Amino acid sequence: MADSPVIIRVSDAGKHAGESVVIRGWLYNLRRSGKIAFPLVRDGSGIIQCVAVKSSLPEQVFEQIKDLTQESSLTVTGKVRAEPRAPGGYEVDVEDCRVLQRVPESEPYPITPKDHGIDFLMDHRHLWLRSRRQHAIIRVRHQVIRAIRDYFDSNGFTLVDTPIFTPAACEGTTTLFEVDYFEGEKVYLTQSGQLYNEATAMAFGKTYCFGPTFRAEKSKTRRHLTEFWMVEPEMAYATIEDVKNVAEEMISFVVSRVLENCRPELAVLERDVSKLECVKAPFPRITYDDAVKILQKKGSEIQWGGDFGGTDETLICEEFDRPVMVDRYPTAVKAFYMQPDPERPEVALGVDVLAPEGHGEIVGGGQRIHDLDLLMSRIKENNLPPEAFNWYIDLRRYGSVPHGGFGMGIERCVGWLCGLEHVRETIAFPRMIYRTRP
Amino acid sequence: MADSPVIIRVSDAGKHAGESVVIRGWLYNLRRSGKIAFPLVRDGSGIIQCVAVKSSLPEQVFEQIKDLTQESSLTVTGKVRAEPRAPGGYEVDVEDCRVLQRVPESEPYPITPKDHGIDFLMDHRHLWLRSRRQHAIIRVRHQVIRAIRDYFDSNGFTLVDTPIFTPAACEGTTTLFEVDYFEGEKVYLTQSGQLYNEATAMAFGKTYCFGPTFRAEKSKTRRHLTEFWMVEPEMAYATIEDVKNVAEEMISFVVSRVLENCRPELAVLERDVSKLECVKAPFPRITYDDAVKILQKKGSEIQWGGDFGGTDETLICEEFDRPVMVDRYPTAVKAFYMQPDPERPEVALGVDVLAPEGHGEIVGGGQRIHDLDLLMSRIKENNLPPEAFNWYIDLRRYGSVPHGGFGMGIERCVGWLCGLEHVRETIAFPRMIYRTRP
Repeated sequence: MADSPVIIRVSDAGKHAGESVVIRGWLYNLRRSGKIAFPLVRDGSGIIQCVAVKSSLPEQVFEQIKDLTQESSLTVTGKVRAEPRAPGGYEVDVEDCRVLQRVPESEPYPITPKDHGIDFLMDHRHLWLRSRRQHAIIRVRHQVIRAIRDYFDSNGFTLVDTPIFTPAACEGTTTLFEVDYFEGEKVYLTQSGQLYNEATAMAFGKTYCFGPTFRAEKSKTRRHLTEFWMVEPEMAYATIEDVKNVAEEMISFVVSRVLENCRPELAVLERDVSKLECVKAPFPRITYDDAVKILQKKGSEIQWGGDFGGTDETLICEEFDRPVMVDRYPTAVKAFYMQPDPERPEVALGVDVLAPEGHGEIVGGGQRIHDLDLLMSRIKENNLPPEAFNWYIDLRRYGSVPHGGFGMGIERCVGWLCGLEHVRETIAFPRMIYRTRP
Repeated sequence: MADSPVIIRVSDAGKHAGESVVIRGWLYNLRRSGKIAFPLVRDGSGIIQCVAVKSSLPEQVFEQIKDLTQESSLTVTGKVRAEPRAPGGYEVDVEDCRVLQRVPESEPYPITPKDHGIDFLMDHRHLWLRSRRQHAIIRVRHQVIRAIRDYFDSNGFTLVDTPIFTPAACEGTTTLFEVDYFEGEKVYLTQSGQLYNEATAMAFGKTYCFGPTFRAEKSKTRRHLTEFWMVEPEMAYATIEDVKNVAEEMISFVVSRVLENCRPELAVLERDVSKLECVKAPFPRITYDDAVKILQKKGSEIQWGGDFGGTDETLICEEFDRPVMVDRYPTAVKAFYMQPDPERPEVALGVDVLAPEGHGEIVGGGQRIHDLDLLMSRIKENNLPPEAFNWYIDLRRYGSVPHGGFGMGIERCVGWLCGLEHVRETIAFPRMIYRTRP
């Protein structure tokens, strides 16, 4: 008896040229040309064209294939053949086929090659993820996340995940989601792990957290989700310059990894990769003052002291072919814990990184106040309850050192790398103000 | 002018033997012996003993060192010297020292070598993480997470993170945390990504999600947190045997990685590594029926049909020197979506993995129902609203295939590997029924 054919994934077809193999998947599409049928089979790792010739197959096998419906599940047995004209470089000559479930014509797969509205697609997100384009985006996302973790893991950072449940918020609860804890207690969903990161940086020197964060913003923009993932490194004995260097190095590393591993996905997305290929250190570094001048020259009404909106960010980043770092924002528009520039206290040692091609802020960070008295007075000025910050203040009591870090939003980063208009496609099941399903 | 000494991390000291270096950290401990002081400096990557000799240092430098207080921040300049008797194999002969912040004797660092109660330590968790033992646990946790991701990333799984906000729960809301969404809408925090994983497995073939999950259980046991991290792989075209094989392979891989990378941490924790060294495939595989017999033989009152509690799990896993896989539980005690054994429908194709040494269940999973009619009737039998499951049922309408997966709780896994009594030390900021701070 011959060996039974080996089960392979489509992505490994090239390793089995000339062999009989089994592919287990779903019918992505089907072309027919008289006595030959060309089922396009997807198995989650890739899509491969199969060739079923009527004369060389048992009749009922060919009959079953030739009228098969989209997304029916099937296993195909056949010989892998190199075919330079095929997208993946290989085809399969069908020897046998077993249909596990045939989707009936009467209730066909709801997503067809025709155009569907975004609401319809979002309602069918559990199926839409099977489409080539959505599939490509999620795979880029995976590589982005992997690259980020590899970067920090190989550079001496310890992963210390920070809590999702946080006690009574102090910077105002308007953009916080409230959770009923036990016996009437209220807790809030984290917006950022930063304050906790400052504690762990003092314990581990260099740390990062990487998890979901939540913002109850009513904004319905193309850059906002209520639930989004963020990576946040934090370093003890670090200045704003160290923060900028790490952000630059990490972003360059992520882009190079995506270019290395995701060429097929970027091609599906019709991404102009030349725009990514130029993303290399050094990134341009400008001050807030410079940015205001750029905006004014471009006709913006912004005055020194104002914070940038999405449109301002777009105008600034248009000027550059790679991410631009903008630092030294007015202290007044930045968070209470931000270290003022000792030479010019009206600006803070904070830095934002704006992605090119209009994708806006992807990174925000800076150096934190390490002086106990200064932190206490900033807490007072901002009318924050010091008792809620007691543990945070402790970090300035017991071996305080200059330190800093940043946060990078994963969805915005993926949106930029994939060249997407809206972040809603960068996560499997996006959550927005009017979207909590499926 | 001589080159200024290079800044290094303690973990890299061995690469700089004979060189003058700068170490930036905190005073962990101090011994004195007449005209020599031995400050033990930690920098988050490790702890190194420094040697400050009065006669070879400027007077004020030695004076500053000899009375330095615990957790004061300092940078030490000195020459690295191999010292076989030192824990890390190296010491530093101090040439200079700069104290950034001296913790005053009047308000000393609150955690001293003396015994503190657990509530005190938990209240000071932001500082407690600096202690050698807590530091070691979190570093093991990091390696566990990294190993899990590496395992799935190298085995063709796509990371697809599932949502935290989930719509109206259907399996009863008693252990769910409710969140106020917008305009009075209620959403719930995820307990598991599994249902979503089933959708993504049909899109990617093999997927995993890895994030925080939430259970509003009132249990105050040593195995429960309200917020815990879970990895959940899911595979299309998979049976319960595939699920068991992947769980076995993944666990073995994680254990071998921890043994490879965390020897110093396990030593700090006084972990008996021989108990981990024997954790190799194949793991014992028994049925629920076998497990009931073991329990009855050990004097338990359990009858066939009952679910196992923590004590039962402990009794079962005591019998084995490595994780034991228990499968085919009574269908009645398992979730509605579990595939019944076709040869014996009163048991379900579910499997739990129990960790040895009394650590209990670390993995739960199995094969899911893939037949549309069977799933519909199980939903009906369980009085669940079919409309809420419409998207989930879709997965059985459009190319349904046998599939399965599992979930592994990170904290229980880390607790087992570190040999801890209670899971509260396995996460940086644990959340329990009476603990939401700091």
